[in-house]
Amino acid sequence: MAHINLSDNIIAISTPSGQGAIGIIRLAGPNCISIVDKFFYGQNLTKVEGNTVHYGKLKNEDGKILDECLATIFRAPRSYTKEDIVELSCHGSSFILKQVIQLFLRQNVRLAQPGEFTMRAFLNGQLDLAQAEGVADLIAAETATQHNIAMHQMRGGFSEIIKQLRSQLIEFASLIELENDFGEEDVEFADRNKLISLVNNILKVIQELKQSFTYGNAIKKGVPVAIVGRPNVGKSTLLNALLNEDKAIISAIPGTTRDIIEDAIQIEGILFRFVDTAGIRETKDEIESLGIKKSLEQIEKAHIVIYVTEIRENHKEIVEEFLSLNLNADQKSIIILNKIDAFHACHSYDVEEATSTLLNRKPVIALSAKDGKHLDNLRKTIVALVQNQSTNAEQVIVTNLRHYDALEKSQASLEQVLQSIQNNISSDFIAMDIRHALHHLGEISGEVSTDDLLENIFSNFCIGK
Amino acid sequence: MAHINLSDNIIAISTPSGQGAIGIIRLAGPNCISIVDKFFYGQNLTKVEGNTVHYGKLKNEDGKILDECLATIFRAPRSYTKEDIVELSCHGSSFILKQVIQLFLRQNVRLAQPGEFTMRAFLNGQLDLAQAEGVADLIAAETATQHNIAMHQMRGGFSEIIKQLRSQLIEFASLIELENDFGEEDVEFADRNKLISLVNNILKVIQELKQSFTYGNAIKKGVPVAIVGRPNVGKSTLLNALLNEDKAIISAIPGTTRDIIEDAIQIEGILFRFVDTAGIRETKDEIESLGIKKSLEQIEKAHIVIYVTEIRENHKEIVEEFLSLNLNADQKSIIILNKIDAFHACHSYDVEEATSTLLNRKPVIALSAKDGKHLDNLRKTIVALVQNQSTNAEQVIVTNLRHYDALEKSQASLEQVLQSIQNNISSDFIAMDIRHALHHLGEISGEVSTDDLLENIFSNFCIGK
Repeated sequence: MAHINLSDNIIAISTPSGQGAIGIIRLAGPNCISIVDKFFYGQNLTKVEGNTVHYGKLKNEDGKILDECLATIFRAPRSYTKEDIVELSCHGSSFILKQVIQLFLRQNVRLAQPGEFTMRAFLNGQLDLAQAEGVADLIAAETATQHNIAMHQMRGGFSEIIKQLRSQLIEFASLIELENDFGEEDVEFADRNKLISLVNNILKVIQELKQSFTYGNAIKKGVPVAIVGRPNVGKSTLLNALLNEDKAIISAIPGTTRDIIEDAIQIEGILFRFVDTAGIRETKDEIESLGIKKSLEQIEKAHIVIYVTEIRENHKEIVEEFLSLNLNADQKSIIILNKIDAFHACHSYDVEEATSTLLNRKPVIALSAKDGKHLDNLRKTIVALVQNQSTNAEQVIVTNLRHYDALEKSQASLEQVLQSIQNNISSDFIAMDIRHALHHLGEISGEVSTDDLLENIFSNFCIGK
Repeated sequence: MAHINLSDNIIAISTPSGQGAIGIIRLAGPNCISIVDKFFYGQNLTKVEGNTVHYGKLKNEDGKILDECLATIFRAPRSYTKEDIVELSCHGSSFILKQVIQLFLRQNVRLAQPGEFTMRAFLNGQLDLAQAEGVADLIAAETATQHNIAMHQMRGGFSEIIKQLRSQLIEFASLIELENDFGEEDVEFADRNKLISLVNNILKVIQELKQSFTYGNAIKKGVPVAIVGRPNVGKSTLLNALLNEDKAIISAIPGTTRDIIEDAIQIEGILFRFVDTAGIRETKDEIESLGIKKSLEQIEKAHIVIYVTEIRENHKEIVEEFLSLNLNADQKSIIILNKIDAFHACHSYDVEEATSTLLNRKPVIALSAKDGKHLDNLRKTIVALVQNQSTNAEQVIVTNLRHYDALEKSQASLEQVLQSIQNNISSDFIAMDIRHALHHLGEISGEVSTDDLLENIFSNFCIGK
């Protein structure tokens, strides 16, 4: 993609590889319709209207039939890339698709780079860069939440916010640039107080967007959850109950689970990566103590820690145990009082309540992993912990590290602007920092872009998109 | 498919599974357009013309956007199945495709069985059974020759021949049935000599079709070729030279190759399954002698045997060696005089010629597997051996065991007809045998079919075809 050339005709297979009923070959570019028409025996494709489908035989240069197929014609600008596009719906045989691709490569049609169709859509103004990245995320989405966020981004939700921030800044930037034009005359067109308040507002939005990244990234990659607790309190049983299958080895012997077992579960459309860890205790078994060391590392990485202990009357003991974990302030946690099936006191609810109260209303759930009793409470609670990180469903969530970096850089430039104003620094410097902030915000939507950046982004796309 | 019901609306994903740019969902049936229209936000699909494409949002019952997609509308009878069809071109994410499928399953659309679209095409008279089977073969085709034969079959080449045979027989059948109607009156409407000559002609065609099956089946599954010869004559080197890669272990130690190594190579669009075998010799090594036993089995199965020996002046010795293989009369063979690079006599051509003459013009090729010298001669010869089995490119080739069986059965019935005429058997019996022959021929094109037969055939298709 080193040379971005929109006058090329490009071709790619747009369906997943493998045998299937249908395989789609997509061509885009100024001459693609007439090129296909030369080998298509059916309607004259150069004469048909856009958005129509035509049955015909595709023959090679020697008149040999490669396939009977359907050709869908899209005419610029009413197409994905805003160019002329032909989609050939062939029999889904890799042999046929290869023959058809090779036929057109011999006609000087070029093989499309990964994401090149979407890059052309971007370059032709069909969508901006953040939206284009939403397309890739949409295709990769595996859960409802990933799908929601990607769809919102593809439909321009995130871009809209960035556009607003930039347009507010641009107005001030032009006033400040004007001051610079007057040079030594010491005029102030841009009201400094208004600028400060504007920059502060923008910084607040950027801060919120940056904060959403923790959630967004977790949603994209799965929320890491560690299940921890002393040996034999039922951690593996709990994980199995959640997984509804027997991935972990269960036994009554303390210390059975030595490896870190990882499993991904979707609960209400959110992907959780559960890590069952070796029980934490003093041990002389070398392999087990290695497992315990890993457990402690896993606990540090987890966004959510589920602390499992056996339920008993003495709730102060439970609280002490939990506090000894010394969790990070950022980490969410849930305390599970397990084995209510074997707990003969009547009031498991009271223990639950007392523990929670003592821990400043931290979620505490008494349940039986063995019987699955109250397991739904755990499911609901864990989902709520994640959703609390995001204020509402329609809020824009940053999921992309590139966007996060750009936000961070514009934040730094804007903080520099504030400092310069406070220190009465000359308007040239203020203007420069505003330009930097604008630049970094512009990188998100692609109003500012370089070939390298584009290559970097689109090379992660599928072929044929 | 036990209940073939054309009034159902059916749905399936028609593209291969996996992530891709585009995923196609296909719906067919009397109400499919209006069902999709309820959830499609764009043009009113119930009002648009057939063979047109429309952009829109697909929302579920709660108004949540599942995808932005293209809907292609086909109106009966101008569609693959001759019914109304909608093809939804979605983003190629399995999450999205699953959501869309589930949405329509909730609207009483039924998941299509494998091959159900093609079965509907058959039941609605779009193509006959042999053509439908050609579709599946076309999708499975991996070489040019497989592709040619499947395309010819899909386009009706084979069906045409069967139709001709049947219509000739039907004429006579009706004359004979007429004789039966006259009962005891001993009239002869059907000229017995004409009938004999007709049946003989048909039997000749059937015989040719049956013979083409050996070739057709080999083309479909790959032509089995055994490379045999004494230890250390260069069999593995020859296979490697053909493969252009090092799949076999080569060494100067006799007896290196103990396993049967199998490799498929395409030469001029024909698939060959090469089997390199352990060198045949007396040995005390148990594993090696097991290998030699396998070699002998492989030789029996091969359609083509490549006998490799070192070139030397004494061509009579070579001929004796080769004859001691005792090849089956059906088996094609090529004799390779290897190591011309190390052969210091000038006239390798003379040895080649002399050997070939002594073996009744059997192909003999002097070459160097090590240097690749004259390897092309081998490639050309092996392709020619296969193509000789078929008279010409346009000839109909039977590739399907079901067709072969049906041909064999109709052959048996027709031979019975001939015998009955010769023995002056009453016309009822002749008529019955002609009906049997017609029945079996009709099974090929599907003029005669049962639900079981259809289920059997179409269950081997891809989903969505």
